Amino acid sequence: MKNLQIHLIARPQGLPSLDLFQEVEADVPPLQDGQFLIKNHYISLDPAIRGWMNAGTTYIPGMALNAPVRAFTLGEIVDSQNADFKVGEFVNGLLGVQEYAISDGKGVSKVDTSLGKLSWHLGILGMPGMTAYFGLLERGQPKAGETVFITGAAGIIGTTVGQIAKLKGCRVVGTAGSDEKCNYLKTIGFDVVINYKTENIAERLAADCPEKISIVYDNVGGEQLDIALAHLAMGARVVICGAISQYNNAAIEGPKNYMKIVTARGIITGIIVFDFLNRYPEAVAQISDWLTEGSMETKEDIYEGIKQFPSVLLKLFSGENFGKLLIKI
Amino acid sequence: MKNLQIHLIARPQGLPSLDLFQEVEADVPPLQDGQFLIKNHYISLDPAIRGWMNAGTTYIPGMALNAPVRAFTLGEIVDSQNADFKVGEFVNGLLGVQEYAISDGKGVSKVDTSLGKLSWHLGILGMPGMTAYFGLLERGQPKAGETVFITGAAGIIGTTVGQIAKLKGCRVVGTAGSDEKCNYLKTIGFDVVINYKTENIAERLAADCPEKISIVYDNVGGEQLDIALAHLAMGARVVICGAISQYNNAAIEGPKNYMKIVTARGIITGIIVFDFLNRYPEAVAQISDWLTEGSMETKEDIYEGIKQFPSVLLKLFSGENFGKLLIKI
Repeated sequence: MKNLQIHLIARPQGLPSLDLFQEVEADVPPLQDGQFLIKNHYISLDPAIRGWMNAGTTYIPGMALNAPVRAFTLGEIVDSQNADFKVGEFVNGLLGVQEYAISDGKGVSKVDTSLGKLSWHLGILGMPGMTAYFGLLERGQPKAGETVFITGAAGIIGTTVGQIAKLKGCRVVGTAGSDEKCNYLKTIGFDVVINYKTENIAERLAADCPEKISIVYDNVGGEQLDIALAHLAMGARVVICGAISQYNNAAIEGPKNYMKIVTARGIITGIIVFDFLNRYPEAVAQISDWLTEGSMETKEDIYEGIKQFPSVLLKLFSGENFGKLLIKI
Repeated sequence: MKNLQIHLIARPQGLPSLDLFQEVEADVPPLQDGQFLIKNHYISLDPAIRGWMNAGTTYIPGMALNAPVRAFTLGEIVDSQNADFKVGEFVNGLLGVQEYAISDGKGVSKVDTSLGKLSWHLGILGMPGMTAYFGLLERGQPKAGETVFITGAAGIIGTTVGQIAKLKGCRVVGTAGSDEKCNYLKTIGFDVVINYKTENIAERLAADCPEKISIVYDNVGGEQLDIALAHLAMGARVVICGAISQYNNAAIEGPKNYMKIVTARGIITGIIVFDFLNRYPEAVAQISDWLTEGSMETKEDIYEGIKQFPSVLLKLFSGENFGKLLIKI
């Protein structure tokens, strides 16, 4: 059986380009004892992929060259030599950009397809949703009445953080890169939205958030993080989730206003979602309930065909995509 | 009665220069009810003074122009219209660079002269000692066996932090700007000392601290903070105390490696010593005990004459001084 894969053949300097990727038609080898075969249905395109493309280890090692690009996928088990993983069950995990994947179950999670749309398990019920949930609730510790500021709020993580923060009684402020995205954020309950391409964020915060920011949920880094640090309330928690403004820069720009955390008596911390692996079921069930009862919603941006992976990935860094970016195979 | 004062007459751009200061001979006005007159004996020269010279409010408002430079002093009450503050008692507080100060008692603390040398109450038993004590113990939460990395370790805060960390069973690593300072740090118990002017800090940490750093106590900022962030142990606490490498820069350089706090599952926090005002007596008593029993020591660098204040202040920023910098009036 043939297995179409997208390989990474060279590491990016700065912004990734299409020539770093190569289509490879591999064979699916026979299953060993304990293994099972997954037919991927969806591939998740996440900013984290950019970090994994670099050589060297951060919280996990960089991805290998001349192998399928590391990405979360969701698929169906179509053959199995493992009694714990049965044909017909659905799983997600870091199974790579390929039509078929073989796993021994390590790092792979079963998906309860009754909890929501299949593709949601790579979005609001998957890694990004878990990152939002635990990053906000565990690291941010929101209290009703506090103001939460979310940079890059129109992404899957930002929209999830914002909606959970509203459910917890917070005032929610977010930045996004287009009026269309800002308008959407308003429809899902954001109190204040700021178009970072056309508006002055510092002036908007001064005007619309005199109470200052108690929680920063930062997906962007750079200037937006600096402005947030200059508007902290006393005891603020700054949760670093990502730095999409910086991922493609050779020289990262550190937060010039980092000393503001001292005067605000705050903390800067971060979220690595894998630390909460054993609590995913609780979060998936809770978010699923919120979706079912209509107190939360999620937006997807789905492209068809695995060969489109490189070009669709680039949309993440141009700010072009809107909603959880997925490829349906 | 005449009162010689040193005024700030203009705000610095970058490094302060002598022409920002002016000697002014004022009159001591008669005391109002509730006031008392202090004859200053010692003036404390601290890096924080540089921050206070700027316009605008941080944790306290910037100092006023055409008034005595804001500084901690220690003096003796020589006249009083306040029953709580008696002639002959000693006090310290932000009383300014002048021979005499009038106070109503607000923000002024009595000094128990039995607890140590008079000048120590501006150093290891004063604001810098309190900053070291609460910054390390409350913000850093040191546990025996952990490694503590102190930037700018030869200053009064760094030497106090290092010695307390040793008393708590930690491994202590510090940077300083001369071999003389490094040698001194070894004599007071530092396990590893690094001359940041002649040695590669990153290489030394890699070689001498394979266990990584659990607590960073940062007085310096800039490159040293970045190197520290790249060497964090899991669960590290980064305590921002100062940023002497940055105070005179128009454009602050933020920590490029700030995302390392995410992968280390650590926190960046800070210390504002005034938050612990009501716990100073406990810390003063404890440090005094340690000094008395010989398990701690402190070094002073004392100049004579209030007129020297501007030129002595500049030594702070050149790295020239060694030991707690004071002026004896």
